[in-house]
Amino acid sequence: MSAFKTVRGMRDFLPEEAKMMRGIEAQARRVAELYGYQEIITPVVESYELLATKAGEDVRLRMYAFKDLGGRMVALRPEFTPSVARIVATTLRNEPRPFRLFCIGSTYRYDEPQKGRYREFWQSNYELMGSNKPEADAEIVVLTNSLMKMAGLKKYTFRVGHVGVLRGILDQEKLEEKTQNAVLQLMDKKQYEDAFGLVEDSDVSKECLVALRDLVGLKGGKAFETIENIKECVDGYEKAVAAAENLNEILRLVLESGCEIDMTVDAGFARGLEYYTGMIVEVDAPDLNVALGGGGRYDRLIELFGGDSTPAVGIAHGIDRMMLAMQLQNAKIETSKDKAVMVIPVKEDLKGEALKISQMLRDADIPVEVEVMGRKVTKALEDADRREMDFAVIVGEKELKGGAVVLRNLNRREQKPVKIEKIVEAIKGQA
Amino acid sequence: MSAFKTVRGMRDFLPEEAKMMRGIEAQARRVAELYGYQEIITPVVESYELLATKAGEDVRLRMYAFKDLGGRMVALRPEFTPSVARIVATTLRNEPRPFRLFCIGSTYRYDEPQKGRYREFWQSNYELMGSNKPEADAEIVVLTNSLMKMAGLKKYTFRVGHVGVLRGILDQEKLEEKTQNAVLQLMDKKQYEDAFGLVEDSDVSKECLVALRDLVGLKGGKAFETIENIKECVDGYEKAVAAAENLNEILRLVLESGCEIDMTVDAGFARGLEYYTGMIVEVDAPDLNVALGGGGRYDRLIELFGGDSTPAVGIAHGIDRMMLAMQLQNAKIETSKDKAVMVIPVKEDLKGEALKISQMLRDADIPVEVEVMGRKVTKALEDADRREMDFAVIVGEKELKGGAVVLRNLNRREQKPVKIEKIVEAIKGQA
Repeated sequence: MSAFKTVRGMRDFLPEEAKMMRGIEAQARRVAELYGYQEIITPVVESYELLATKAGEDVRLRMYAFKDLGGRMVALRPEFTPSVARIVATTLRNEPRPFRLFCIGSTYRYDEPQKGRYREFWQSNYELMGSNKPEADAEIVVLTNSLMKMAGLKKYTFRVGHVGVLRGILDQEKLEEKTQNAVLQLMDKKQYEDAFGLVEDSDVSKECLVALRDLVGLKGGKAFETIENIKECVDGYEKAVAAAENLNEILRLVLESGCEIDMTVDAGFARGLEYYTGMIVEVDAPDLNVALGGGGRYDRLIELFGGDSTPAVGIAHGIDRMMLAMQLQNAKIETSKDKAVMVIPVKEDLKGEALKISQMLRDADIPVEVEVMGRKVTKALEDADRREMDFAVIVGEKELKGGAVVLRNLNRREQKPVKIEKIVEAIKGQA
Repeated sequence: MSAFKTVRGMRDFLPEEAKMMRGIEAQARRVAELYGYQEIITPVVESYELLATKAGEDVRLRMYAFKDLGGRMVALRPEFTPSVARIVATTLRNEPRPFRLFCIGSTYRYDEPQKGRYREFWQSNYELMGSNKPEADAEIVVLTNSLMKMAGLKKYTFRVGHVGVLRGILDQEKLEEKTQNAVLQLMDKKQYEDAFGLVEDSDVSKECLVALRDLVGLKGGKAFETIENIKECVDGYEKAVAAAENLNEILRLVLESGCEIDMTVDAGFARGLEYYTGMIVEVDAPDLNVALGGGGRYDRLIELFGGDSTPAVGIAHGIDRMMLAMQLQNAKIETSKDKAVMVIPVKEDLKGEALKISQMLRDADIPVEVEVMGRKVTKALEDADRREMDFAVIVGEKELKGGAVVLRNLNRREQKPVKIEKIVEAIKGQA
C-alpha cells in the first residue's frame, strides 16, 4: 500500500508546532478569563441551514456540506458565531444580559490553500451578548489587542469600519436587503465597479453614487479625521451619519482605555459575512495575506434564530495564522520546561523495579521516560542525550541491594549512587 | 424562523461542563508530559481510505464519510490511531525509535445516541512507537491508571485480553485473515454462536472449537490464575500459548510498577478494530454502558501504511465519558478560581476611565468585567452579586478628582475609597 497523505488543504502539527498552537490557545483562554468570557464547546457538525442562513454566499459555497447517514443536511462549521447564536436563542434564552461567551476549536472552509490558509483552521472566538453600547464594541478591540500582545506579536494593524455607513445609504435609497448583501459581498472582494454597477441598476440618486465612490477612497490617515471625512461624505444620509458617530465613539473609548493600537479607518470596508450590523474590525499583520482576526457587531442574528432580540458583538482570531505571524516576527510565548528523566534497568529482570521507580518520580510530578527497548545502558544513555533529557536513573543490581540507584546528570555528565527515597529530592535539588 | 437545534447525536457543553472537559484535558496533557508523550495535532478530515483500511466493519459503516468539493472521498476521524500511524509512516519515518505521541480532540461515529455516547466524542490518545516489549504494553495500562486517578475517579476496572490467543488458534487452523476478522467482530459483539459457526464452516479441528468455547468462559477471577487456565486451554497452539505468556508478563510488570489496579482477564475479549495484534485493554466504570477507554498493541499498521516495520501500542480515553463517570462518582478536579472584579462607571462620561482602570487590573492578571449596559450602579452591583463576583470598582467623579475609586468587597459588603495606584494591591491583599 502506498503511503497515505493528508487530504489537500489539511495539515498536521508536529510536536514543536503543536506546542506553539497550544501555547496560543492557553493565552486565548487566559484572555477570556481576564475579560470575563465563559467557555462553551459546540459541535463541529451543525445543521446546514443554521450555518448557511447568514453566512454570505462566499462562505456558503465553500462549506463542507453533506448528508449524514440519517439523511440530514449538515456541514462542518465555517465559524463559531451561528453556533453561539443558536445557544443564545435557545438554551441560554433566559440568561440575564449581559453575558460573554468564548469558544476555541477548529473550523472548516473549502478555500484555495495558500500560505496561512488551510481548509481546517483554528479560531478563538469571543462574543459579548446583550449590550448595544459602544463600550462593548471597544472591549472586543481591546481584548484582541491583549491577545496579540500576549502572543508576543509586535507588528499588527487594526482596520475598522462600520457596516451602518454603507447600509445607511443603501437603506435610505431603498435598496432591497438582498441587493445590499450582494453589493457588500462585491466590496469585500474589492470589486468596486461591479458593486457600483449593481447600485446604479437599482434606480438610486446621483448623490448616492458620488457618496459611495468617495467613501471607497476614504481609508488610512488619522482615524478621527477619516471619520470626520466620512461624515461629510454621507451628509444627508441620517443613519450613515449616526453610524460614523458610533464608530467615532468606539474608537475614542479604545484610546481612552489606554491601549496603544495602530488603527486605520476604512470607509469602504465590508466583510463577507452577512450578519453584521455595526462596527466591523480586522487585524492584519505585515507579510501575511490573510487576516489574524476579524469580527463586528451583529444585533439581529439571535432574533433571526428565534431568540429574544439581543444586541451582540464578537470577534474571532485565527490561531494558526497567529502562529504564522509569530514565526515571521520571531515572537515567542514563554513556557517553562520540566526536567525530564530517563529510567534505565541494567538487566531484564530489573524492569519491574525500573517501572516502580518511574512511578514514584511521576507521583512527585517529575516527567519520566522509562526504557522500553531492552537496550544496554550505554545505548539508552546515548538516546537520552540525543533527546536532551536532563537526568538518567540507572537501576542496577549492586546499588539496589543497598536500596539505591545511580543518578546521572546528563548535562554535567556526572553520576553517583543515590538512595531511592532521596531521588526526588536530588533531582529537584539539581534542577 | 423556528429555533435551530443541535444535529441529532451532537451536543453543546455549557460553561460548567466545558470547564470540566477542559479540566480533564489539562490532566490528560499533564499525563502525557509525565510519561514523555509529545503532542501532535492531526486533522478531523482524513481520506476515507486511510480511516477505513483497518477500522473493522462496524466502525467503517458508521463513519461520517462524504465527498469534498474536489470530489475526494473523505471522512471525519472515528479515532486517532490511523492518523498517528500515517504520520509515523511518512513524516516521522526516520525518527529514531522509541517515541511517544499524544493527541487530544474530537472524533466522530454515527452510533445510536445513548447515555454517554454521542456522535461527536472527545478522546485523549497515547501511542508508543517502536517497542515490542511487554514494558511498553504495561506503560499504556499504568498511564491510563494515572489519568483515572488524576480525574478523581475511584471506581473503575481494567479488562485485559490478548488478540494473539484467539488469532493464534485460528492461524494454526489456517483460517483466512478475513474470516478471522469476521469471527473477532462477532465475538466483540458477544455473538459467540455466530462466531463459532463461522469457524466450524472453515473445516477446523475438533480441538479448536473446544478450545474456543472454553476460552469464552474464561474471564474474571484472579488474573494470573485465569492466564494459567488460558494456557492449559490452548495447549498445543504454540502462538496462543506465547500470547498468554506475553499477557502474563505485561500484567506482572503492571503490578511490579506499584499500581494497585482492579484488573480482570477476559480470554474471549475482542475489540472492534481490526489492527490489534497483541494485548488489548478496556477501562470500565460502574453504571456506565460505555468504556472509559480502550486500546492495545498493533504491530503491523505502520508497515501496512507504507512505513517501516514499527511495533506499536496505544490507548484512547473518552474524555466526555470520563466526565460522565466523574459526575456519577462525584469526583472533582481541583482548580483555583481567580477573584473576579466588576468595574462600573457612575456616569456615561466616565466610561473611558472605567475602561482604563479595567485594563490596568487585567495587566496585573486580575479578571475584570466592565459594565457595558449603561446601568445605574445599584443595578450593576445587583448583577455582580448574582453572578458571585468578588469585588466591584466604582468609578465616580468625586473620588476620581482625588485620584481614587471606590473598592467594594462584594462578599463582605464593605466599601471604601482606594487610590487608583493602590487598587491592584488592595484586591490581591483581600483576595
